[in-house]
Amino acid sequence: MKAEILTIGDEVMRGEIVDSNKSFLADRLLTLDVETRFHASVRDEPDDMRDAFRRAAERSDVVLVSGGLGPTRDDLTTEILAASFGRKLSLHEPSREALVRFYEAVGREMPPNNVKQAYFPEGAEVLPNPVGTAPGFALEAGRAVFYVLPGVPRELVKMMDEQVLPRIAARRGAGEVVRARLLRTFGTGESALDDALQDIARGGYAAGPSDVILGFRTAFPDNYLRPLARGASAAEADAKLDRVCAAIRERLGAVVYGEGDDTLEVVVGRLLRERGKTLAAAESCTGGLVAQKITAVAGASDYFLGGVVAYANAAKESLLGVPRELLAEHGAVSEPVARAMAEGARARFRADLALATTGISGLVFVAFAEAGRTHVDRFVFPLDRERHRMLTAQVALDWVRRALLGEPLVAPQLMRRKA
Amino acid sequence: MKAEILTIGDEVMRGEIVDSNKSFLADRLLTLDVETRFHASVRDEPDDMRDAFRRAAERSDVVLVSGGLGPTRDDLTTEILAASFGRKLSLHEPSREALVRFYEAVGREMPPNNVKQAYFPEGAEVLPNPVGTAPGFALEAGRAVFYVLPGVPRELVKMMDEQVLPRIAARRGAGEVVRARLLRTFGTGESALDDALQDIARGGYAAGPSDVILGFRTAFPDNYLRPLARGASAAEADAKLDRVCAAIRERLGAVVYGEGDDTLEVVVGRLLRERGKTLAAAESCTGGLVAQKITAVAGASDYFLGGVVAYANAAKESLLGVPRELLAEHGAVSEPVARAMAEGARARFRADLALATTGISGLVFVAFAEAGRTHVDRFVFPLDRERHRMLTAQVALDWVRRALLGEPLVAPQLMRRKA
Repeated sequence: MKAEILTIGDEVMRGEIVDSNKSFLADRLLTLDVETRFHASVRDEPDDMRDAFRRAAERSDVVLVSGGLGPTRDDLTTEILAASFGRKLSLHEPSREALVRFYEAVGREMPPNNVKQAYFPEGAEVLPNPVGTAPGFALEAGRAVFYVLPGVPRELVKMMDEQVLPRIAARRGAGEVVRARLLRTFGTGESALDDALQDIARGGYAAGPSDVILGFRTAFPDNYLRPLARGASAAEADAKLDRVCAAIRERLGAVVYGEGDDTLEVVVGRLLRERGKTLAAAESCTGGLVAQKITAVAGASDYFLGGVVAYANAAKESLLGVPRELLAEHGAVSEPVARAMAEGARARFRADLALATTGISGLVFVAFAEAGRTHVDRFVFPLDRERHRMLTAQVALDWVRRALLGEPLVAPQLMRRKA
Repeated sequence: MKAEILTIGDEVMRGEIVDSNKSFLADRLLTLDVETRFHASVRDEPDDMRDAFRRAAERSDVVLVSGGLGPTRDDLTTEILAASFGRKLSLHEPSREALVRFYEAVGREMPPNNVKQAYFPEGAEVLPNPVGTAPGFALEAGRAVFYVLPGVPRELVKMMDEQVLPRIAARRGAGEVVRARLLRTFGTGESALDDALQDIARGGYAAGPSDVILGFRTAFPDNYLRPLARGASAAEADAKLDRVCAAIRERLGAVVYGEGDDTLEVVVGRLLRERGKTLAAAESCTGGLVAQKITAVAGASDYFLGGVVAYANAAKESLLGVPRELLAEHGAVSEPVARAMAEGARARFRADLALATTGISGLVFVAFAEAGRTHVDRFVFPLDRERHRMLTAQVALDWVRRALLGEPLVAPQLMRRKA
């Protein structure tokens, strides 16, 4: 099955927006084990669009089209796609009614032009849009089936997942189902993951080769694993995924921190809430990044008491109670100061747990304090400023997670550690 | 002049990475007033690549190719491009020597396969890569000139700007030069900008129509203006841009906060340093985002003393000295508490200036304190959590900038303000 993705619109072609729809669609096709063979984008130009549609109908089996379904004169996708294959447009009454209802619901009258969005090529299957005004459609032409979606990412994502993927899956195999998961890891390099999971990656662990495929992806500072399984039913494929994911988790232990959309800060927040623990942060080199990540999660006020961004030494003294002599003797970037910062934050916020970061170009100390112990370690990260901060913040968050799980506060493998 | 962008590589096609090279290249072409007519991407498949190259040579004048220049067996761009147009490959000795030197410099022996990167199609002009091992090249074929660049964004950006753009500009006009600038604005909606600058956007202000083009772009919460001017020389085009930018700045006043790559936090940092002022932040709803932005700028420790992320009321009391009665009487999201937070941060950090944010789903108070005055305002932002935080942080930063410039601390137009 050969897949092609076509995006349409002047904004994309001008580079005004990064075309993230393409990578999303390609990624979702892969969950059905369908590789995208071609990407193409054209402007809202009838000739260029027609060429692209006809070429796609010749060379591809599945064509995902996004963009150009709006109500304006520039939105030509439906009209040109129909004309490219000699189809007429006809009014789809249920879509017209849905449009009218949509405008009624927001208290406005439907602009007359918008009825255009209820016209579809003859022979098309209309795909309702539950979150916007532009329905999509499926149309067979040449050797291909075109699935046409609005360009608005929120609408496209929902319609792809709920309407297009099941149709492609049904068309693809005689009842065969493909399912995928995403496992998020932190602290082990990609090649080390690869080595550790070789047998699983080759399909040797589950029911047989080519049955489960294990993909890798790097998203600094994390690495993701993407197991993909086939089965005669969703239940069968899911059961295989359950087995493979259990095997991966057993092999990697606490290196796997979450699944799917669960970022590290979401996982940390969930653990804090479950255990009834509160957290505070004392940040120097991360400059508020840890606090910002934690508070980006809705409901963080239940467990995050707050933080101090102590850039100046005077702030470390007055707001965190770091003794002046300690700063004078060891310097702000030192093990004793990191320790005093974490303990100071814990005391000042009356938190159960506290973390601290202090560092300068490359060198960094991370500290974690809880009742009865404070753990500090020293790292050298040969990274630029931005990635240095990202990695330091992730280590600090990961230590909170590990402490809550009773796991050791390890130095992630991707860092060079210097004594 | 018709331009086309081709990206090559399995990672792009699988959606593992968002193809930001495309939007970058299209955006840079626009600075020469060249619209990109086609985008296409293919996998590392010889047949697909050959089709794409031949098609591009028929329909486009300028073809930018990225990816597939590495040393591995999968990197086929040079070989297939040559074969597509019946060219042989030949060794470019200076490139081979540069490769050997590169490996010597990092203390390794060059792997034998890598010499492949010093072979180019006959008739190609080699474009040296100052930051990586893979040189690019320019090749005429069909009606097109192909400019072939490595896919690594850092290398691609540098080579596009330094080597490809000047060549396209030279080819484009008989000595005509096109120059562009980016003006960054905050606080005025796109349509209000459009209204305010209509005459300039239509080219009516400068030497004549079609002489200066004014583009708009939204990058929430900012809006960018992109004037573009032509001239017989760079000096002439720059002089036109100077005039247009001066006119825009006169019209919009402090709404224009910076040019080019200067983010608001960079501009605020520069002003703080120039005026010898220090800053502190007290954040509730922004959760560290303001501090994180300020400290993302190198050298921020010269003017940023630190911040408090005061999520819990107890933290507002103990770390910022907000009176308990104030919290009890008015609630944490109130004008008096915002005021007390800013003044408390200013006192605790002994800073010249301080800002504060406190808010909850939609409603937010922003405060700014300096010697002799504290300014507070109340906003309702009907936005999701993430954009609510982004907008609030930008208002707070913008007020610091405005205060340093002696400008009024206005409520940006894009916000609905409720008394």
